[in-house]
Amino acid sequence: MDAATQLPTVGMIGAGQLARMTHQAAIALGQTLKVLAGDPAESAAVVSPATVLGDYRDVEDLRGFAKGCTVVTFDHEHVPQEALRALTAEGVDVQPRPEALLYAQDKHAMRTRMAELGLPQPRWAPVDSISDVEAFGLPCVLKAATGGYDGKGVWMIEAPSDAQAVLASGIRLIAEERMPLQRELAIQVARSPRGETAAYPVVETVQTGGICTEVIAPAPHLDPAVAAQAKEIGETVARELGVVGMLAVELFQTSRGLFINELAMRAHNSGHWTIEGAETSQFEQHLRAVLDYPLGSTAAVAPYTVMANVLGGAPGGPRLDERLQHLLADDPGAHVHLYGKAVRPGRKIGHVTVRGDDPDLLRRRALRAAKRLQEGE
Amino acid sequence: MDAATQLPTVGMIGAGQLARMTHQAAIALGQTLKVLAGDPAESAAVVSPATVLGDYRDVEDLRGFAKGCTVVTFDHEHVPQEALRALTAEGVDVQPRPEALLYAQDKHAMRTRMAELGLPQPRWAPVDSISDVEAFGLPCVLKAATGGYDGKGVWMIEAPSDAQAVLASGIRLIAEERMPLQRELAIQVARSPRGETAAYPVVETVQTGGICTEVIAPAPHLDPAVAAQAKEIGETVARELGVVGMLAVELFQTSRGLFINELAMRAHNSGHWTIEGAETSQFEQHLRAVLDYPLGSTAAVAPYTVMANVLGGAPGGPRLDERLQHLLADDPGAHVHLYGKAVRPGRKIGHVTVRGDDPDLLRRRALRAAKRLQEGE
Repeated sequence: MDAATQLPTVGMIGAGQLARMTHQAAIALGQTLKVLAGDPAESAAVVSPATVLGDYRDVEDLRGFAKGCTVVTFDHEHVPQEALRALTAEGVDVQPRPEALLYAQDKHAMRTRMAELGLPQPRWAPVDSISDVEAFGLPCVLKAATGGYDGKGVWMIEAPSDAQAVLASGIRLIAEERMPLQRELAIQVARSPRGETAAYPVVETVQTGGICTEVIAPAPHLDPAVAAQAKEIGETVARELGVVGMLAVELFQTSRGLFINELAMRAHNSGHWTIEGAETSQFEQHLRAVLDYPLGSTAAVAPYTVMANVLGGAPGGPRLDERLQHLLADDPGAHVHLYGKAVRPGRKIGHVTVRGDDPDLLRRRALRAAKRLQEGE
Repeated sequence: MDAATQLPTVGMIGAGQLARMTHQAAIALGQTLKVLAGDPAESAAVVSPATVLGDYRDVEDLRGFAKGCTVVTFDHEHVPQEALRALTAEGVDVQPRPEALLYAQDKHAMRTRMAELGLPQPRWAPVDSISDVEAFGLPCVLKAATGGYDGKGVWMIEAPSDAQAVLASGIRLIAEERMPLQRELAIQVARSPRGETAAYPVVETVQTGGICTEVIAPAPHLDPAVAAQAKEIGETVARELGVVGMLAVELFQTSRGLFINELAMRAHNSGHWTIEGAETSQFEQHLRAVLDYPLGSTAAVAPYTVMANVLGGAPGGPRLDERLQHLLADDPGAHVHLYGKAVRPGRKIGHVTVRGDDPDLLRRRALRAAKRLQEGE
């Protein structure tokens, strides 16, 4: 709590683009967002004066960082459980709590818990040998139980030989059946310690090479019964796992119904559209939830909102500044978010959001805008 | 231009709430907003790591501040002309240029120029004695030619004795007729160096004790011909004065038509509604304009948007944090902006924005929200 402003200080472990956009939301609420960065050039570190340099795996660094924070939360799920449990044992208010966060950190634990809750998910099994994989059945998907993101830690397995190198790495793995997808959806739910929940409209997500490249909100032509089921899944997960803050549940939509793919307990790429597209952005909502504030309206502002990620393009071509100007000239209604990162091929360096009535037209606009920023002309 | 991100650094002289909200917009565009603050506790200084401490009246401080900035602009109009002319003579890109900014700094110069342009304004005259004031006619308004803001530097004169103390202060004054107002309006126009302009919808502003307390966008029940005239006035002023960046023209609406009240060449309180209410916020638009980027869409996002200012209440009562939570519980669709300032009675400490269909209902919601933050319950 800041003495002069009488408003809280939120500590966020991690200083990537999620922390950067949370800083924008914290400014509006009069709060101080303190970020723990590994490097002063990280996305949030370059725009927040309350940056602390340190290692998120080091309990001493975390302890120092937590001092003076009303609550401590995350922009990634890589903080070790032992470190978080040490902090909570010392009275630090960590949200989501380590017991909940575990299910966003460990896919084996998550799959086990979803099964206990009777929630729909792909057939799965822990595997640690070729014979386990063969017994599970091919083709399948191998996933690292911990540490994966943006397609990293996920391997498509057609033949036993594909699994060899993955198994040789010695990381803990689970196998999952490959679902015959119609498309991917995501549901985002905020939950506060007092148990209030607020669900956003169900969105469609489009992945390219394991990276989310487009989000359409709401998911077009979605059967209301399926939307209701997605919301029910999201709220059940939030409640039963004791999530606090934003929860994203990625879902497979198939001819056999919905299946849970992944969980994240933080602001998520599938929710960036909420900055312009919803009454309350996921970043403000996360702050409100972890502080046990009343949650904000999740109503959509426009009939449709589409977000497209901007990935770093190949080196060469016009500078990003020039590309940006071309895009702004081309589409005066495009909302650009750049993350202050050096451009590297394939790296998420920003996103663009457009609002309107026609989802197909919006997708074309958003992709065109993202492409302009990526490659120039 | 930042080497890693290939994006510009904008220098803003002043670190109040306008700079604070501009920092949020600069983050989205991937830019660095460097602010010149007189005190490290100022609104923008507490949220921006690119804060330079210095005196905006000191040309040496300004010179140091301008180093590395792609362009230098303002969150207030109090920088002396000589200092700005020294910077521009040395090749610093200052926007708006001092020759334009003069008309937002000096009401005598502004009134003279508006008269030359044949634009409608109250009858006025420079005055420096009681006999000048009597010759002008009473009642009238006396205004400090320079340095006024938020009702400061404005005196309602009923009798010659009211003018005595004001005249004795020795400041340069103009007298203006008191207009029989129907209401006050404002038009905001962005203009870039290449001459592109973009006008926002005409808004109604409500003043209380000389301070803007409410803005309704668009101005309800406004005759389209009057709206067109307001836009024409705004665009004429922007073009003829060579404004670059955001221009706000405050207007009196009377039974005899529109009359120009004040000019500001920066983001303005009458444009805070654009953060949630327009496709492009005035803060992003100002950055785009001073950088000679293409301008963004000024289209409204909702049928009506209403903004109410939050003034510091009397000491005592619940802390701001508690007041905020009560407000958020009461109105989940309220958009709160707090400026990170210590609470002092009458000081602008934030604003609240609501969007919807019914301007009367929105005004009630916005005022109720602002009152909750001001006084608690």
